[in-house]
Amino acid sequence: MAWYQVKGNEADVVFSSRIRFARNLEGYPFGERLSAEKAKEIIDLTAKALGDAFKRTDMEDISPLAAEALVEQHLCSRDFAAVKGPHALFRDDNKSISVMTCEEDHIRLQCILPGLALQDAYRFAAECDDKLDAALPIAYDEKLGYLTHCPTNLGTGLRASVMLFLPALSENGMISSLAHQLSKLGLTIRGLYGEGSKSYGGLYQISNQVTLGLSEEEILHKLADAVQNIIKKERELRAAPTGEAALRRADRIHRAEGVARHATLLSSEEFFKLFADLKLGVALGEITSLSHESLHAMLIHALPATLSMQSATTPKSAIERDAARAAFIKQAWEVQNT
Amino acid sequence: MAWYQVKGNEADVVFSSRIRFARNLEGYPFGERLSAEKAKEIIDLTAKALGDAFKRTDMEDISPLAAEALVEQHLCSRDFAAVKGPHALFRDDNKSISVMTCEEDHIRLQCILPGLALQDAYRFAAECDDKLDAALPIAYDEKLGYLTHCPTNLGTGLRASVMLFLPALSENGMISSLAHQLSKLGLTIRGLYGEGSKSYGGLYQISNQVTLGLSEEEILHKLADAVQNIIKKERELRAAPTGEAALRRADRIHRAEGVARHATLLSSEEFFKLFADLKLGVALGEITSLSHESLHAMLIHALPATLSMQSATTPKSAIERDAARAAFIKQAWEVQNT
Repeated sequence: MAWYQVKGNEADVVFSSRIRFARNLEGYPFGERLSAEKAKEIIDLTAKALGDAFKRTDMEDISPLAAEALVEQHLCSRDFAAVKGPHALFRDDNKSISVMTCEEDHIRLQCILPGLALQDAYRFAAECDDKLDAALPIAYDEKLGYLTHCPTNLGTGLRASVMLFLPALSENGMISSLAHQLSKLGLTIRGLYGEGSKSYGGLYQISNQVTLGLSEEEILHKLADAVQNIIKKERELRAAPTGEAALRRADRIHRAEGVARHATLLSSEEFFKLFADLKLGVALGEITSLSHESLHAMLIHALPATLSMQSATTPKSAIERDAARAAFIKQAWEVQNT
Repeated sequence: MAWYQVKGNEADVVFSSRIRFARNLEGYPFGERLSAEKAKEIIDLTAKALGDAFKRTDMEDISPLAAEALVEQHLCSRDFAAVKGPHALFRDDNKSISVMTCEEDHIRLQCILPGLALQDAYRFAAECDDKLDAALPIAYDEKLGYLTHCPTNLGTGLRASVMLFLPALSENGMISSLAHQLSKLGLTIRGLYGEGSKSYGGLYQISNQVTLGLSEEEILHKLADAVQNIIKKERELRAAPTGEAALRRADRIHRAEGVARHATLLSSEEFFKLFADLKLGVALGEITSLSHESLHAMLIHALPATLSMQSATTPKSAIERDAARAAFIKQAWEVQNT
């Protein structure tokens, strides 16, 4: 079962938690100066270090559509999927671990888990990192810490992030002031697909901006504290509407269910909006025909590439894709009711 | 069972057929010159002429809400409901006949039937008219025919009308050219509630403009022919969309079903729009969970006064009425599925 199909903690607000380490090997050049031959060496060394629990995908062997689907499922980064030349993805689905080789850094290791689970994600990622550390000549400097291609990843090389569902903060226009507060803590808030991406479906990613000068524990604590405050605030705002405002919100939520269950064409843009109303509906107990995890899976599976990959015939036009998406969304209820 | 709950002919295009006669009694003044005492005389004479099959409602004894509900159900006219002074409605529900006394004319007699049924409606109305003729001093002039308060009703005193559902003609912007053609035939097209009223839910009323100089048979034939042509044109236009246009129309129809089944607040304005899409969906076979007659009943019962009359507690605000309407609409599916 994929990470997003599993019930997580604080699922009414938290979509996922992710830990990522950036690691590099001594004696190998970075980025464009890394030859195809040397890249293959890194991939093979990593494969050996990780062992049989990891499934290897040589990205040059899969279609752009399959690569895009991995991005949509948060199993690798968009930059990684776009790399020219040899690069491979290793996955241990049991522990939700992905290891990307030969992206910007030689190795990027991530663990993504559903719900609020920073500590578990950190533990799984660190175990895997120890394995790599023991087998590979990881570049490390006593003063600078882990050496990385981009200086913003120096030090711990740790990026911890939490994907939050913040419809009430968003509706109340509080995201920009939240961003301002977070930046003072060395944290940053972004849309669904990382840096520069726009928010979809009320989802926002909060992560640490600073990797140097703080211990891994300090980074995790700072992020976890901020997330707890945001969860509290979001829940308070959700509980606030009464009277007519509450009736209007409930109506909006039930209409979203009506459209999701009956529309025969659904653009991904509209679906993101429906997702936000459906998820709020589940959180408020207005919608009982879905669970948070079924909605999370629906969100991922309705994205263009993942949707196309799972269709019997690949949709050939926008309208065919919108029809496939609508047909797929409807199933979420049919599956649950059988 | 009310007239609108029964399956009619050509129900995909025809909502209802109506025949109305205007009659007056010799020796009684018209309109404002008619005293309360004389009005009561007319009411009592009519009651006696009609006999026991008719149920009498003295309009001064019922609430404005109950009167408005009768208007919504097309059982009396809006003008009749607004009359000051004694006026009474007589109904023979078996034959869908209403007799309004002391409106603009002393007596207005109508028969309304579901679907295309001008001949039946005429037959039932004429039977009743014969009964009145035999018992009452009906004002009749050899040259002018039946004498009426307003000269536009002189002659036969007959108004025949058919309520049509014309979403395709309407969407294709063809209603005004249709109105022009009809006027050349001495016919007129109006919205749901008669003269001057706007169209709701794709419904249009076609009726004869002229009552003098034509026989009753000629009036009926002219209207029936025009209606047959309109039905044919409307069906052709509905069958025309293919490809993406057909997919988009189907999506719109299914969304209407989704909103009707899930919304918790529904204004009557929005409901009229939904009604049009739902009815088109039933006509096209896209929606199989409803019948034309259940939709017709839904339309009438969702109107403000009828809705309030059937609610356990009378809604006190617009939002309460919208909530009651949404709850009521939903039931259409629940009732059918049990």
